[in-house]
Amino acid sequence: MRDVANAAGVSLMTVSRVVAGEPRVAPGTAAKVEKAVRDLGYQRDDIARNLRIKDRTTSTIGLVLDDLANPFFAVMARAVEDEARRQGYLVLVGSTNDEIRREREVVSAFCARHVDGLIVVPTAGSHAFLSGRMRSGTKVVCVDRPAKGLDVDTVTIDNQDGARRAVAHLLDHGHSRIAFLGDREDIWTQQERYSGYTQALSSRGVREEPSLVRHGLRARADAHAAVVELMDLPNPPTAVFTSNDLITMGVVEGLSRLARTAPGSGAAGAASAASAAAAAGVALVGFDDVALADQLNPPLTVVSQDPAAMGTSAASLLFSRIEGSTSPPRSVVLMTRLVVRGSGEVRPTVRS
Amino acid sequence: MRDVANAAGVSLMTVSRVVAGEPRVAPGTAAKVEKAVRDLGYQRDDIARNLRIKDRTTSTIGLVLDDLANPFFAVMARAVEDEARRQGYLVLVGSTNDEIRREREVVSAFCARHVDGLIVVPTAGSHAFLSGRMRSGTKVVCVDRPAKGLDVDTVTIDNQDGARRAVAHLLDHGHSRIAFLGDREDIWTQQERYSGYTQALSSRGVREEPSLVRHGLRARADAHAAVVELMDLPNPPTAVFTSNDLITMGVVEGLSRLARTAPGSGAAGAASAASAAAAAGVALVGFDDVALADQLNPPLTVVSQDPAAMGTSAASLLFSRIEGSTSPPRSVVLMTRLVVRGSGEVRPTVRS
Repeated sequence: MRDVANAAGVSLMTVSRVVAGEPRVAPGTAAKVEKAVRDLGYQRDDIARNLRIKDRTTSTIGLVLDDLANPFFAVMARAVEDEARRQGYLVLVGSTNDEIRREREVVSAFCARHVDGLIVVPTAGSHAFLSGRMRSGTKVVCVDRPAKGLDVDTVTIDNQDGARRAVAHLLDHGHSRIAFLGDREDIWTQQERYSGYTQALSSRGVREEPSLVRHGLRARADAHAAVVELMDLPNPPTAVFTSNDLITMGVVEGLSRLARTAPGSGAAGAASAASAAAAAGVALVGFDDVALADQLNPPLTVVSQDPAAMGTSAASLLFSRIEGSTSPPRSVVLMTRLVVRGSGEVRPTVRS
Repeated sequence: MRDVANAAGVSLMTVSRVVAGEPRVAPGTAAKVEKAVRDLGYQRDDIARNLRIKDRTTSTIGLVLDDLANPFFAVMARAVEDEARRQGYLVLVGSTNDEIRREREVVSAFCARHVDGLIVVPTAGSHAFLSGRMRSGTKVVCVDRPAKGLDVDTVTIDNQDGARRAVAHLLDHGHSRIAFLGDREDIWTQQERYSGYTQALSSRGVREEPSLVRHGLRARADAHAAVVELMDLPNPPTAVFTSNDLITMGVVEGLSRLARTAPGSGAAGAASAASAAAAAGVALVGFDDVALADQLNPPLTVVSQDPAAMGTSAASLLFSRIEGSTSPPRSVVLMTRLVVRGSGEVRPTVRS
């Protein structure tokens, strides 16, 4: 390949890019390389194969995430794709459904295709199996969560701080019976957000009430059912903190269903009059912004994170490694933003 | 490789799958192949390379879509990924932003990696450039829209029928001044939906009113501005049909902004009292369902399509081609569903 590069007066990397049909090569340069290839009597495919074998580089990275259909990860994936495109790389995607077995399968399949690097949203469980991949040259960056047992570049948000501020906001508005509705406890972001919840309570001397805490809610329907149950307690919460977007949506549905069954609304339902009244006046702050949050009644107050910025940061870290950076592992922590819209500023109803 | 297959007593395809680290090979079979590889003194990588070169198969497909961050395409992509996984294939993704130049770049880059097939959401413009790829063996399936100048398997929905039913629904509820808000006119789905709109009007003898038709709305903000303008007409529409999810969201925002500035609401705004009153009573049916549509006030009536089913169908068609099907091009058309929730059943206000 050196011959082609010399004849065209360009670097080996440029030859590689032209042959691989990558964008971001000036048309004039591409033409020179193509001419050199023809003059020297090579076949494009031979050269491509040769380059791949010699350089062990495929100009491909793998993105391993929880669920591509989740809007949060879709936005992150698009940002990774855009950064990869700027660098002349392609992106393989694979969803893990947050199962370690499936994550291993996806990683194996990507590595069998000789990806140059992996961006991974790690599932719960040990990630020691990635160490072997890294020793054989695959670069790895973790995003959204750190990987247990793996010392690599990581991009996360400050989950504890975001949750702490959300719950402090509810405390500031006069609430002390604040429910926590969360996803599986073995997911790192959920642990962090739960920890932020307990810290906010204890910093104000509010005792945590175990009956108001629900973990393990995986789907909207779970969250819907959980909030209906909570509102039916003899002493229901006056505020709810939800720890991700799906749970927030389920709670919005559950509360609106309960409010519709309130006495005088004309609707018949299983909910008691007391739980309906409690639901109608409950405050809510959710982690993650959701579409049309500002159009709900009341509009949703949320802790907003920026999945596009997370994807871009992770991709930048990965490409710096692929280009040879050997600095110690870096940890990028992005801050969240409390978006005040109405649902988090409802004051507790005075009980008669 | 024949040696390895013979020694292990399995097919060449099975050897290929084991060497590529693909799932869906029984552990016992995989062990036999691994043993044969070792016994014959091969290196896994040599075998992998050899197989790739011989079979010209990479067990990879490329998915070329408008925008991976758009929830509609994200759900479609996840469905393609799941079907590919079942078949032992990996998925490269690339967004085109609906630009033909960018689509060509993505397709070139995917083909340079020797993908076995492409699932493409074609942008507007001629797709003759894909014919060359197909002659050299790459299988192509189009989804969401057909590709101009290309005779391939295609999965679409019945856009005309969906739009026609939406507009007929508004006519049934007493409206005749029905606005159309659409995206770029050169996008096939938009042409079809606009055609459904005009068909519904003319079938009831309602004359189309050009001042109520807006094309080229690319973002939520465009739709927001367009609906505010429409409501400020001397004779505003009493109903609105929006032709995709982004436009629907922009219109919901615009209408709610106008309604908040209505006299007596206490809010000051640029909108006239008349346009605010018109906005407060306008009916709305949108194409595409949106998150939390049932929690809006009024809840949104929409034409719902199933992007997961579209992705699964497209992937099935592609894999049948990769496996050798030579039937004439197939066209799969999926039906839409009118989801009645409230916003489409508002009757026109009687004018004084």
